[in-house]
Amino acid sequence: MISKGKYVTDLHEGEGVKAVFMISERKILVARNGKPYAKVLLTDKTGDILGIVWEEARQQVAPLVPGDVVGVKGNMESFEGRLQLRVEKIMKLKDEEVDMSSLVRTTPSDIPSLMSEIRDHIAGIRSACLKAVVEKIFFDNGLWELFQKAPAAKGIHHNYIGGLLEHTAYILRAVDAIYPVYRHLGLNKDLVVAGALLHDIGKIYEYSYSRVIEMTPMGRLIGHVYLSTHIVDQAISKTENFPEELRLQLLHVLLGHHGQLEYGSPKPPMTREAMLLHMLDDLDAKLIGFSSIINATPDEEDFSSYSEVYGRFLYTRVFDEEEK
Amino acid sequence: MISKGKYVTDLHEGEGVKAVFMISERKILVARNGKPYAKVLLTDKTGDILGIVWEEARQQVAPLVPGDVVGVKGNMESFEGRLQLRVEKIMKLKDEEVDMSSLVRTTPSDIPSLMSEIRDHIAGIRSACLKAVVEKIFFDNGLWELFQKAPAAKGIHHNYIGGLLEHTAYILRAVDAIYPVYRHLGLNKDLVVAGALLHDIGKIYEYSYSRVIEMTPMGRLIGHVYLSTHIVDQAISKTENFPEELRLQLLHVLLGHHGQLEYGSPKPPMTREAMLLHMLDDLDAKLIGFSSIINATPDEEDFSSYSEVYGRFLYTRVFDEEEK
Amino acid sequence: MISKGKYVTDLHEGEGVKAVFMISERKILVARNGKPYAKVLLTDKTGDILGIVWEEARQQVAPLVPGDVVGVKGNMESFEGRLQLRVEKIMKLKDEEVDMSSLVRTTPSDIPSLMSEIRDHIAGIRSACLKAVVEKIFFDNGLWELFQKAPAAKGIHHNYIGGLLEHTAYILRAVDAIYPVYRHLGLNKDLVVAGALLHDIGKIYEYSYSRVIEMTPMGRLIGHVYLSTHIVDQAISKTENFPEELRLQLLHVLLGHHGQLEYGSPKPPMTREAMLLHMLDDLDAKLIGFSSIINATPDEEDFSSYSEVYGRFLYTRVFDEEEK
Amino acid sequence: MISKGKYVTDLHEGEGVKAVFMISERKILVARNGKPYAKVLLTDKTGDILGIVWEEARQQVAPLVPGDVVGVKGNMESFEGRLQLRVEKIMKLKDEEVDMSSLVRTTPSDIPSLMSEIRDHIAGIRSACLKAVVEKIFFDNGLWELFQKAPAAKGIHHNYIGGLLEHTAYILRAVDAIYPVYRHLGLNKDLVVAGALLHDIGKIYEYSYSRVIEMTPMGRLIGHVYLSTHIVDQAISKTENFPEELRLQLLHVLLGHHGQLEYGSPKPPMTREAMLLHMLDDLDAKLIGFSSIINATPDEEDFSSYSEVYGRFLYTRVFDEEEK
Amino acid sequence: MISKGKYVTDLHEGEGVKAVFMISERKILVARNGKPYAKVLLTDKTGDILGIVWEEARQQVAPLVPGDVVGVKGNMESFEGRLQLRVEKIMKLKDEEVDMSSLVRTTPSDIPSLMSEIRDHIAGIRSACLKAVVEKIFFDNGLWELFQKAPAAKGIHHNYIGGLLEHTAYILRAVDAIYPVYRHLGLNKDLVVAGALLHDIGKIYEYSYSRVIEMTPMGRLIGHVYLSTHIVDQAISKTENFPEELRLQLLHVLLGHHGQLEYGSPKPPMTREAMLLHMLDDLDAKLIGFSSIINATPDEEDFSSYSEVYGRFLYTRVFDEEEK
Amino acid sequence: MISKGKYVTDLHEGEGVKAVFMISERKILVARNGKPYAKVLLTDKTGDILGIVWEEARQQVAPLVPGDVVGVKGNMESFEGRLQLRVEKIMKLKDEEVDMSSLVRTTPSDIPSLMSEIRDHIAGIRSACLKAVVEKIFFDNGLWELFQKAPAAKGIHHNYIGGLLEHTAYILRAVDAIYPVYRHLGLNKDLVVAGALLHDIGKIYEYSYSRVIEMTPMGRLIGHVYLSTHIVDQAISKTENFPEELRLQLLHVLLGHHGQLEYGSPKPPMTREAMLLHMLDDLDAKLIGFSSIINATPDEEDFSSYSEVYGRFLYTRVFDEEEK
Repeated sequence: MISKGKYVTDLHEGEGVKAVFMISERKILVARNGKPYAKVLLTDKTGDILGIVWEEARQQVAPLVPGDVVGVKGNMESFEGRLQLRVEKIMKLKDEEVDMSSLVRTTPSDIPSLMSEIRDHIAGIRSACLKAVVEKIFFDNGLWELFQKAPAAKGIHHNYIGGLLEHTAYILRAVDAIYPVYRHLGLNKDLVVAGALLHDIGKIYEYSYSRVIEMTPMGRLIGHVYLSTHIVDQAISKTENFPEELRLQLLHVLLGHHGQLEYGSPKPPMTREAMLLHMLDDLDAKLIGFSSIINATPDEEDFSSYSEVYGRFLYTRVFDEEEK
Repeated sequence: MISKGKYVTDLHEGEGVKAVFMISERKILVARNGKPYAKVLLTDKTGDILGIVWEEARQQVAPLVPGDVVGVKGNMESFEGRLQLRVEKIMKLKDEEVDMSSLVRTTPSDIPSLMSEIRDHIAGIRSACLKAVVEKIFFDNGLWELFQKAPAAKGIHHNYIGGLLEHTAYILRAVDAIYPVYRHLGLNKDLVVAGALLHDIGKIYEYSYSRVIEMTPMGRLIGHVYLSTHIVDQAISKTENFPEELRLQLLHVLLGHHGQLEYGSPKPPMTREAMLLHMLDDLDAKLIGFSSIINATPDEEDFSSYSEVYGRFLYTRVFDEEEK
Repeated sequence: MISKGKYVTDLHEGEGVKAVFMISERKILVARNGKPYAKVLLTDKTGDILGIVWEEARQQVAPLVPGDVVGVKGNMESFEGRLQLRVEKIMKLKDEEVDMSSLVRTTPSDIPSLMSEIRDHIAGIRSACLKAVVEKIFFDNGLWELFQKAPAAKGIHHNYIGGLLEHTAYILRAVDAIYPVYRHLGLNKDLVVAGALLHDIGKIYEYSYSRVIEMTPMGRLIGHVYLSTHIVDQAISKTENFPEELRLQLLHVLLGHHGQLEYGSPKPPMTREAMLLHMLDDLDAKLIGFSSIINATPDEEDFSSYSEVYGRFLYTRVFDEEEK
Repeated sequence: MISKGKYVTDLHEGEGVKAVFMISERKILVARNGKPYAKVLLTDKTGDILGIVWEEARQQVAPLVPGDVVGVKGNMESFEGRLQLRVEKIMKLKDEEVDMSSLVRTTPSDIPSLMSEIRDHIAGIRSACLKAVVEKIFFDNGLWELFQKAPAAKGIHHNYIGGLLEHTAYILRAVDAIYPVYRHLGLNKDLVVAGALLHDIGKIYEYSYSRVIEMTPMGRLIGHVYLSTHIVDQAISKTENFPEELRLQLLHVLLGHHGQLEYGSPKPPMTREAMLLHMLDDLDAKLIGFSSIINATPDEEDFSSYSEVYGRFLYTRVFDEEEK
Repeated sequence: MISKGKYVTDLHEGEGVKAVFMISERKILVARNGKPYAKVLLTDKTGDILGIVWEEARQQVAPLVPGDVVGVKGNMESFEGRLQLRVEKIMKLKDEEVDMSSLVRTTPSDIPSLMSEIRDHIAGIRSACLKAVVEKIFFDNGLWELFQKAPAAKGIHHNYIGGLLEHTAYILRAVDAIYPVYRHLGLNKDLVVAGALLHDIGKIYEYSYSRVIEMTPMGRLIGHVYLSTHIVDQAISKTENFPEELRLQLLHVLLGHHGQLEYGSPKPPMTREAMLLHMLDDLDAKLIGFSSIINATPDEEDFSSYSEVYGRFLYTRVFDEEEK
Repeated sequence: MISKGKYVTDLHEGEGVKAVFMISERKILVARNGKPYAKVLLTDKTGDILGIVWEEARQQVAPLVPGDVVGVKGNMESFEGRLQLRVEKIMKLKDEEVDMSSLVRTTPSDIPSLMSEIRDHIAGIRSACLKAVVEKIFFDNGLWELFQKAPAAKGIHHNYIGGLLEHTAYILRAVDAIYPVYRHLGLNKDLVVAGALLHDIGKIYEYSYSRVIEMTPMGRLIGHVYLSTHIVDQAISKTENFPEELRLQLLHVLLGHHGQLEYGSPKPPMTREAMLLHMLDDLDAKLIGFSSIINATPDEEDFSSYSEVYGRFLYTRVFDEEEK
């Protein structure tokens, strides 16, 4: 096993580098003096760094494709105010030679413990019918494996291996937390829990994520709102004596979880269970999305750069009275 | 078989009436003098007329429920500028005693001939896979019966028995007509034809229409965009060797047929086939919807009353040069 | 003290009534036979009933104005399908003669215990500055009294005495419940708690609610978003050494709590604390609003009537597996 | 006549070029070493290629202006992943020396045969009044010449010489195709045909297109919706006995052809004829626009780049069952 | 000449009435006892009053149609809280027998003096070309007569004879007032003045207003934005040597005067002159519209009823410091 | 005092420069040959010029920060079609050594004379209460100084020292001009004048403008709509006997001045005074904004580049009849 070497987030200007990365993008260009050079985007689980190859660019880089694992030797320098890696040597490694998990962005949470949390939530469903359907989906056809890997997004939040799992687990925690506050309203908690577990299940097909996270044609043309609902509907049709009324309500929770037609739900939430799931889903995405933008903003900035997704600047300061 | 008697559209002020209707609504009220009276909405395939029962209102009307078939005797009068039927006698009939088809609003087109048109279109699909799926859906589980009855809407257009059939047949005719104009673009015609046949198939569960057309809980909470796609997806999963690529494209045509997210399509049309089906679907709905409003506007009015659905008044005059 | 008699929700067709109500509206009309009669809307804490006065309508009703407390004698009857009270005698009572609390719609929760919950939350604020400001606002100028009376809305939810208190307490419970789920993000919980306590404080001036809930000119022209923020800003300016940075963040939480400009927030939430408060505020309003519509829908209806506020029908069924 | 040489779409990396182009843009710049160089955008009817002039850039390029025809000698190279033409020699030619039609983007359809199609459609109008007006417009003042040259857009679709003609002809074909499907509705086909012929007639003034397609000040400040309608209205005012009712309906078809106020129609379609023309116009623009984006997407991409115009990615695969 | 008698705004409950009105609407109905009665809407220049005819309703009312002038004898009474006129006798009069100007709603301003103001503004245009076109339009084909009669709207503001004139004159006053404030910006004042005079000129065909103000089919299907521009464009085409550049700018001012596409301008204002005219037009409409709603609100109300047009309640109080 | 030297707008290609500027931005970069160089944005009151430092870039530029005043020696050259200043020497100067007013963008109007205009308007307020509040705000706590410096925007219009003052003065002139046109409507002019003076007063805290104009965190998180209203509300609370009714109306004018919720007004204008102020505020911003874009467009262009702010191109030609 070849040692990973330094992680992207630990690289500093001026130092020598010998490390393992994955290639996310690569381009061979011609400099103004007619000599070819290459740009490679080098990735590990902590982020990306741009590599520039001046020496034997064509020979070294032409054979590489995105997703390839490479060993790189070079020096860190600064260009136009940004760090880059001037690559002296770059060569393809075999997947078996490296610790792949050091190269792919992954949830900072502990995956096995999140998985066990999910298992507990499934076990806690009191409705036999709902539990049967949930178990059929999670445990019957290999989906359990995919579920712990899929991201929940490509963009700002949960955009890493285990993102879907993490997002699901947090919504379940939020359901557990909020439900007692509104217990007297008589909501069907099982429906909300099942909705939390299943609403994004289609995301395992919406993204490809073996190496780089990309939206699949399935994701773009069909989308996880339909996919999740269809997967559940199929499982229901294979479950004996599943009440039609319950099917209606569960599918509605799934179809409505984007909250509004213009966000891709063909029906807006018309039950409290659907509304509650939608809002806790949204809350998790917004809190993690905001946090992710704030964390990516340099410390000396009061505001993030303008976020197209949220249509606003975000303020990055947390007031800590004791500090002041 | 009891004779139908006069149809709603043939009733005039001042004349006596003895006819068969279906009850759409009914209310028992108390007049200011303390005496009970009743209002019944009487329907046949040509429309509705309000009936007022002054005599023995409670005894006569209490046993009746919407959907009941009744024989009515009374006189036509005008109240507040509208025709109404002053009912002297109203009594429940058995379904077997009357010609039910005279009571329920039905497409003016010939259903068997439309059905045969549909059959021809299915037969004309060149793709073996698509044809197999379409045939499985239409012919394998009794859906063929429902398909010739379902309405395509509750509101302005195709809001009658056979409406879905009629709407489907007209879109197919339009596909046949338009396709040659754009043949050189290389669209997959089979996809458009299959989309036309299947996009609204979920409407057979979106409405109840045995007697009165109502949206079902299934229609309100789930809706035909999902239902149609799910039905097709299930049929595909039961069809051997159906290409995944074709599945993707067909489901996309179905999901996108409302054209925009805010109209209930979770994905907008991203292929020309999906766009073409969406636009021909919309064209049929708009032409029939406009026609239906224009036909319902009294001859002496230049404009319809304001249409909330279309956000405009419609102009009712067709210019006929020869007439002038 | 005159006995309340039957409550509105306990009245049935055909029975005699002798009870105390508050007048919400009243109109004297002339019947077609030229005789005057009167309609009075009679209210108690459980709801409204329409009263019709045929006898000596002018003499009995002319002296009454909305807000007056009256003793009423009459009989329950049904007109156009709705219950109404045919009033024989109606006469003004003095406020002291009746239990006013039986007449005004009031939160079903226990007000003293909610107040003590609020007190605990204030006590639990760890930031000395924030606690000082919150205490100044609640305890320094009689606002504590108003706070336990004000409604939180005139429309669907929390539209009764104690509504603001109840809404505030539930958001605080939700903050307490959700905060631990996201503790690792490092949000300033005190800010969220202070925001929950103060964001709607301006509603004590936005509505008049001594007898009937109405929006005041202050509410219509200025609104509680500004009022709450201004009240807090003033309290801050009277608090020594309140950090300017904290002022900024607290005011932002308050200004942003409607979530979007088009809902009346002059700034959208740009911090996670502001976003969290907004979403928990919205969640409470939506869950209670949905519940209130669902509860008001007759048991036999699957769907509520169309809600203009939410732009949808609501589904009223809660699935209870054991029942089925 | 100087030979055109290679067309833009036939150029490959590494080969020498000697060919004729039109200049669309040109800029003289200074390299970091202080030496001037120039960028010229070279166009022919198949597309654009960027030329870089390093030698005697100022002397060679300064005299040239956009629209000039030039002979170019140089070599094809790749820079930053894109083809460019390293120009050795570039010199102005006279228009007479070259085949101008090889330089300007032009409809792939046969213009004379489209023109004859238009003529047939005019001849086929049954209404004498409408035909008189259409003929007056097309044949009385030289418009016939402009009509075969004008583009129908500057952007994605029909953005070439003959584009207006092609767009018009296709809508007419679509009208002919669809009309029989809805004949029973009693639409006035002449109105739709006249609308198809005339709705975009103002585009001959909306763009300049002698060499490069640009929107004119007339197009930007006034626009073809008004211009078309005004041209027709003027022709009507010069036509004896043109019925006022028909004028109203024809002008309405023209004003409404963008379908909605926010797309520049001062009135939305209120007649079926206006709605039909709008939808067939839209259908042609969308099918050609989609096709044009799909054709411009590299074969190996499943999706086009994001289209701002359509607010979506387009999927580029056509499923061909036989191929698979 | 028959005396007008009391005006609508001077009628009080309980008094006898003998007066002349115009009929705006009329309906013959049947009472619950089977006897016919009639409702007539009686109008004079101060407003409308509902008349009820119990005696010989059919004989008296059947011959009357909207627009007829009638003499009425009866008594004022109150029904359901509203004043109405119980008609004893109603009979058609000839137009010549009455002072028509007392019956039709008319601007409170002095028409001849407003017309002379308009004349002065025309005389004050410095551009010979613009003045020529304006004079041709106003003075060459009888439009001068229509211009002093046309309303500027059917709804809230300027909805009376002379409304267009009044609206035009006030905008001109506002142009004169504002122009000096921004003189240094170098706007072309003549363009703004010509725009003010001409932008609504098409309204003379958008409404019918000989007796009752109605939108014409021309107004609904074509609208005054096009009509005004076309009228001006035609006048330009008959004016020798009118500069094309000036035509462009003037037509743009006219087309853009609604300010946004969604309000019916096919182009938004792209020049300062167009923007200025749009905003002064809007200001006049809003100030008069607000005033008209405020004046129509009963004195004891702080707020108007909800205005659909403006999407808000209006506050009716003007603060007068001296009064208080 | 060091001489300013040439202003940015007077610099031409090829000439030597020795002048004083302020630094707006600066970056140290590394060229492809590994040598560091620097980019500095040099500003004076007439505009910005990019400076490139090749010699001893790190030594010369590292010590400088934005806002620093510098003396610069170098030569003007053109790169990629744009002027830039090749800097030989750049060194920090002390503020005292230069005329700061030559470096900061400032209103072209005369500040003292605008201030005196403001003073006159304050003096002209007839309402004692309003005048007291306005005077308290302007004269009691140093705000008078800030008021003459603050900009009214960062973007297109009034984005310079004195911008707020200029904007305020012009609105007041417009109020004075327009008020007489609508005097008969009985608006409270004092309210409009006070609103004009105070509506943007919060902008003195919304921007920082000692050297460069930036939006402050206060501006981004809180905004001037709230700030202005709160400042006025506080002043009112310190004014004895200020009528509550007047407070309500004044605060409403301030809160409503953005005209619509989606533009940041928590309440839309519900009084004519609020509407009038909003529209004159908007008119001033639009006329100055349009002018500023038109002035910045090169003379040879008919249209500005696309303005994101206004969502359109602007036409730059003013038609001057005499010229032609």
